[in-house]
Amino acid sequence: MDLNLNLQISKELKEASSKVKEFLDEVLPTKEPKILYEASTHLIKAGGKMLRPYLAIKACEAVGGVMEKVLPAAASIELLHTFTLIHDDIMDDDPIRRGVPSVHVKWGLPVAIMAGDLLFAKVYKILAEKLSGVIPPKKIIKVIDILTDAAITICEGQTFDVSFSHLEKVSEKDYIDMVSRKTSQLFKAAAEVGAIIGGGTAFQVKRLGKFAGLLGIAFQIVDDVLGLEADEKTLGKPVGSDLREGKKTILTIYAFKKAKKKQKEILFSAMRKDSSQEEILEAKKVMEELGSVEYAMDKAKKYIEKAEKQLEKLPETDAKKSLINLANFVLKRNF
Amino acid sequence: MDLNLNLQISKELKEASSKVKEFLDEVLPTKEPKILYEASTHLIKAGGKMLRPYLAIKACEAVGGVMEKVLPAAASIELLHTFTLIHDDIMDDDPIRRGVPSVHVKWGLPVAIMAGDLLFAKVYKILAEKLSGVIPPKKIIKVIDILTDAAITICEGQTFDVSFSHLEKVSEKDYIDMVSRKTSQLFKAAAEVGAIIGGGTAFQVKRLGKFAGLLGIAFQIVDDVLGLEADEKTLGKPVGSDLREGKKTILTIYAFKKAKKKQKEILFSAMRKDSSQEEILEAKKVMEELGSVEYAMDKAKKYIEKAEKQLEKLPETDAKKSLINLANFVLKRNF
Repeated sequence: MDLNLNLQISKELKEASSKVKEFLDEVLPTKEPKILYEASTHLIKAGGKMLRPYLAIKACEAVGGVMEKVLPAAASIELLHTFTLIHDDIMDDDPIRRGVPSVHVKWGLPVAIMAGDLLFAKVYKILAEKLSGVIPPKKIIKVIDILTDAAITICEGQTFDVSFSHLEKVSEKDYIDMVSRKTSQLFKAAAEVGAIIGGGTAFQVKRLGKFAGLLGIAFQIVDDVLGLEADEKTLGKPVGSDLREGKKTILTIYAFKKAKKKQKEILFSAMRKDSSQEEILEAKKVMEELGSVEYAMDKAKKYIEKAEKQLEKLPETDAKKSLINLANFVLKRNF
Repeated sequence: MDLNLNLQISKELKEASSKVKEFLDEVLPTKEPKILYEASTHLIKAGGKMLRPYLAIKACEAVGGVMEKVLPAAASIELLHTFTLIHDDIMDDDPIRRGVPSVHVKWGLPVAIMAGDLLFAKVYKILAEKLSGVIPPKKIIKVIDILTDAAITICEGQTFDVSFSHLEKVSEKDYIDMVSRKTSQLFKAAAEVGAIIGGGTAFQVKRLGKFAGLLGIAFQIVDDVLGLEADEKTLGKPVGSDLREGKKTILTIYAFKKAKKKQKEILFSAMRKDSSQEEILEAKKVMEELGSVEYAMDKAKKYIEKAEKQLEKLPETDAKKSLINLANFVLKRNF
């Protein structure tokens, strides 16, 4: 059954992904200065999971809307996400993303900053241009407002994330609050925008938004686990980079709460920019022994359960089934 | 008379500036994470000339609109400009801006990137929120579209500017094209947006936009001259930094065209990251001897004349007078 779920979701994500990519190819052709446009589309071409556009599309369909109508917004949401990835990789100095060199590594800092800025601008270009005539102007402004709020909140969350690296202790509450801003807000915004464009009621928009927001928190928790447990190839980025960057994840927060003196020392020695692969593996072992992974996965499961509850009062549709499948997939994913 | 002109324009710019700052204080209060909001407002507090908001306000008034209506858009244009300054300073690694440490020097790279991103998002937050009820939704989307196009064009222009540093030869045509994108486009957009919000006709919007675009080119040329001729205190940034960064300005392009072998060598030796103050002064002397400054100022004057012609068919208003005064001021300014 899990295998079927994985296959089904993978198929649907791929379908959404190819539609979004097709759309983006059209609105983001390579023009002069080539270096800027190539750098901007680099990570899109490398291939993402396209979870956020998928959420927008399915939220639209879940309230009776059609995919064609929501596609521009779905694509613009992926651009917003990609813009944050490009800038985040600079800030964290992450060398690899989606299995390819990150933008600043390949094109240098100035072009990477501008590539991110360009994508951010393109978000609005698409919304202002491609939604005109599709939904009323007032609704376009509402969509712009929601995605702008998400962008502002992401900046805040990313600032907290960077600041946390310099703190010795961060509480789980602070972590969840940071994740709600950095990751979950755009999931929420994607579903809200999809539901609004699909013509959903205020109640439906709210439920779908809450569903996606809770899903986003679970997604980030699982992401933290994969950052420790997956291998570099499936992960598309170096294993243990969170540790090296001193990032506070639910795993490290829980581990530090439970660790004895000796274990804390092992954890600390891995949380340095130049820690060896051996030190990373030792810290990984400590975290596993302390039960960090189980704890995190249990947390993620609880968020998924809460998320699914949000959909209870929504009509039974194929899209709703897809959203529930997606929620379960987030727990089981290995990339 | 010139003194009067300077006094008059300075007074009007200050008035506009205080209105814009007041508005921005309200929409950009310092909240958590404080570091992000402090970094975002750092350059605004340091005080800019506010030429772009002023253009928007006067363009609005020139077609019969009132300042209150255009203020949100004028403020958002200043945010868009400030966002580009923060990111540009990172790219060029400029340590000083407006007489204060640049944002990345004061808060570090990650916060500076996010501070810029936040301001860019706030542009749209202000437009989506503060224009609602003031002008029809369709017009808001038009304003968003114009400013987004300007942002895209600025990214392109800045990429050209950065790329030019690595080229040995850049033509004057390429330089003007780069400046049109990097600087003049936002001047143009500011005036267009002001005229649209003021209820101007398509003809008026076009004329005012062209006026401001041509003014923007002249402004950048004078900026290049000031970068060589002014002192650090009035300039608010180090003298000769364009040279050190290998920036192609109208001064260097003209100088290289006219220079003999020995002079070229002097110019080249100044165009290095670690060139001494003496080398900068020698290069400055060479450029002055070759007539670069006169040539540039003559060019600027021609753009100002072209700009003023655009206003001929506009009704005689105080705002039109202010715009013409501004155009003359751009030629005479020393900061």
